Amino acid sequence: MFSTWNSPNPVLFGSGSSKVVGGKLVKFGCKKVIVVYDKGIKAAGIVDRILGYIHGAGIETVLYDGVLTDSPDFTVNEAGALAVKEEVDGVVAIGGGSSIDTGKGVDVLLSNPPPINQYFAHPGQAPTGDLTNLKPLIVIPTTAGTGSEVSPGGACADTQLNTKENFGCPVTLGIIDPELTLGLPPAVTAMTAFDALCHAVEAVVSNQPNEFSQLFGFEAIRLIGENLPAAVRDGSNLKAREGLLLASTMATMSILGPFCNIPHDIGAVICMMFHIPHGAAVSACLPEIFKFYAPAVPDKMRRITEAIGGKVPVGATPEEIGEIASAAVFDLMKNTKLPRLTAYVKSREELLTAVPQIMATQTFFFSPRPVTAEDVAEILKKSYDHQLQMA
Amino acid sequence: MFSTWNSPNPVLFGSGSSKVVGGKLVKFGCKKVIVVYDKGIKAAGIVDRILGYIHGAGIETVLYDGVLTDSPDFTVNEAGALAVKEEVDGVVAIGGGSSIDTGKGVDVLLSNPPPINQYFAHPGQAPTGDLTNLKPLIVIPTTAGTGSEVSPGGACADTQLNTKENFGCPVTLGIIDPELTLGLPPAVTAMTAFDALCHAVEAVVSNQPNEFSQLFGFEAIRLIGENLPAAVRDGSNLKAREGLLLASTMATMSILGPFCNIPHDIGAVICMMFHIPHGAAVSACLPEIFKFYAPAVPDKMRRITEAIGGKVPVGATPEEIGEIASAAVFDLMKNTKLPRLTAYVKSREELLTAVPQIMATQTFFFSPRPVTAEDVAEILKKSYDHQLQMA
Repeated sequence: MFSTWNSPNPVLFGSGSSKVVGGKLVKFGCKKVIVVYDKGIKAAGIVDRILGYIHGAGIETVLYDGVLTDSPDFTVNEAGALAVKEEVDGVVAIGGGSSIDTGKGVDVLLSNPPPINQYFAHPGQAPTGDLTNLKPLIVIPTTAGTGSEVSPGGACADTQLNTKENFGCPVTLGIIDPELTLGLPPAVTAMTAFDALCHAVEAVVSNQPNEFSQLFGFEAIRLIGENLPAAVRDGSNLKAREGLLLASTMATMSILGPFCNIPHDIGAVICMMFHIPHGAAVSACLPEIFKFYAPAVPDKMRRITEAIGGKVPVGATPEEIGEIASAAVFDLMKNTKLPRLTAYVKSREELLTAVPQIMATQTFFFSPRPVTAEDVAEILKKSYDHQLQMA
Repeated sequence: MFSTWNSPNPVLFGSGSSKVVGGKLVKFGCKKVIVVYDKGIKAAGIVDRILGYIHGAGIETVLYDGVLTDSPDFTVNEAGALAVKEEVDGVVAIGGGSSIDTGKGVDVLLSNPPPINQYFAHPGQAPTGDLTNLKPLIVIPTTAGTGSEVSPGGACADTQLNTKENFGCPVTLGIIDPELTLGLPPAVTAMTAFDALCHAVEAVVSNQPNEFSQLFGFEAIRLIGENLPAAVRDGSNLKAREGLLLASTMATMSILGPFCNIPHDIGAVICMMFHIPHGAAVSACLPEIFKFYAPAVPDKMRRITEAIGGKVPVGATPEEIGEIASAAVFDLMKNTKLPRLTAYVKSREELLTAVPQIMATQTFFFSPRPVTAEDVAEILKKSYDHQLQMA
């Protein structure tokens, strides 16, 4: 298996880096940009800070504050229509994954006819839409999870089909400023960090090993293990925030080669079915999945376990490594108060109703071992019981 | 200081990956390409292998075998004229840094009027030449040193001025196949690996610390420390070759943010003045430079030293770390039979004649501490004496 590497999006990382957004827009030739965000980010005061930097550089703005969780198609189409009507020449997205994905959709619709739905990727079909002449797009993440600033496309909920779909869209510049994450509440900090942890874990255990992915992935896991508990304990710990935000960027860089497998394949479905926040959905079954991974990739599971603070004795069998890995990640979930599955799904039986849709829509293509419907049911069942018991 | 990351060139890494070159050219829409290399690579049988893969995909070739060390301008202009005359629609460069840089120059001249010299970069001046509509360029390194496959431009000797100049040129795809490096003689293996080691060291000690550079840089140093002695002992050790070639790619990725400092700043001048091969020139003074670095960046010098096999006691002072680092890298130079300065420069006094030109043309801008003419003279003098003594 060859290792590919192709980082599509330039990034600028560092505390205080968001101050340069105005100058960068000027450099990109922008005069009037649409700024896309949600009402929570506005309430946190972050939008006004960024608007100050943009206006300070003499650039006009049009505001769209209608971003919703999972970037529903109608919001992307609405914001896109506003951007076209106002004849903006650039896009700035501020926020978590949903804001950045909405911003990406707006950028596509600035140069392509609406609606966004016609540009959703379908396996085996050529992509539609022209991505070669897009307007400049600057994205400014305010959570340390999605890593959408370094991914080559966006995700969007198709509200007719109740599915999450993907489309292509490069980013002109990702500005990654840990200071913007200082105010995140503990639950958001934990959920987004677990999303990043899943990206990195899925990258390094992939059946398509990639040298570049592994370098970024193991470093991201190490940074999350080192910094997540501290950032949850004290949200104003800038060093911990820097570690988590860097981890989130690196985790998404790690997953650009092999793409995701079991945690995100299961998570994508239960997220939509039970309205579980993305980060909680993808990590809900992590302890059971770690046990499932271990026989296939024991050495990698050892490195992952040690990176998040577990101790694996020399000579441990793959099954023993799986048990220790599972306990270590469950401890991290407990210590950081990650919301439980049981808060969103009423019963084990209700959760198991997801199995047919998971098997119908997910391929588990990059899993280090084959995954059957029985495996998925077992993973879901044990995860639910485990969390119920410990709640 | 903010960390920037922007990898301009997609890469494909892995043993056997050069077999895909034909299919990739077809995918890029090429029908007739110029293949650029030197006579040594041809004699090693590598060109014929690659030509087989290209012709096997139904693609015509035009051959240019006139590549010379340091890519002199007249060879680039000659190969560029051939490419234009033959109306090729793509470029494949096979070889070390000089072949890849020549290929980059040819690609520039396929879409811009000759000579290449008018596109050389000058500090403070806007770049000339249009790089937005270049023909596809595939580069296939056969040494593990330059990392030119991931750098955003090429270097070329100006034969009027006797200087090495830079120009911009992105690469469509770098195909990095460790099998192609199996036949490299020990001296070439050592010199190219030391070039990569310098890239990585200069990146991590830079006064402009960059998180992404440090991740790639420390991994490259570790890979070189682990694999260089084995590859020199047994050139057919594929695992060692894989480690070195990956290190070379990662080392150049690491230096894309901060650029080089003392080793390459000194090396660039003495390379041209005394006709020292690039890898030997840039690493010639490494033991003395490690001592010079240590007071400014002791923790980083500790990590570098440990990555190349040195043991640094807990509580060592910066000066002690410098001494241990210097001894460790000198050992690596001896063990891998790196050619000595004393083989190219007759006397210490002759070497010192380089000081004025070094100070006139090099800024040491990214050095972790300021560098005076006296510092350079001291580094050169001690390096020469040290190597003379140990020869």
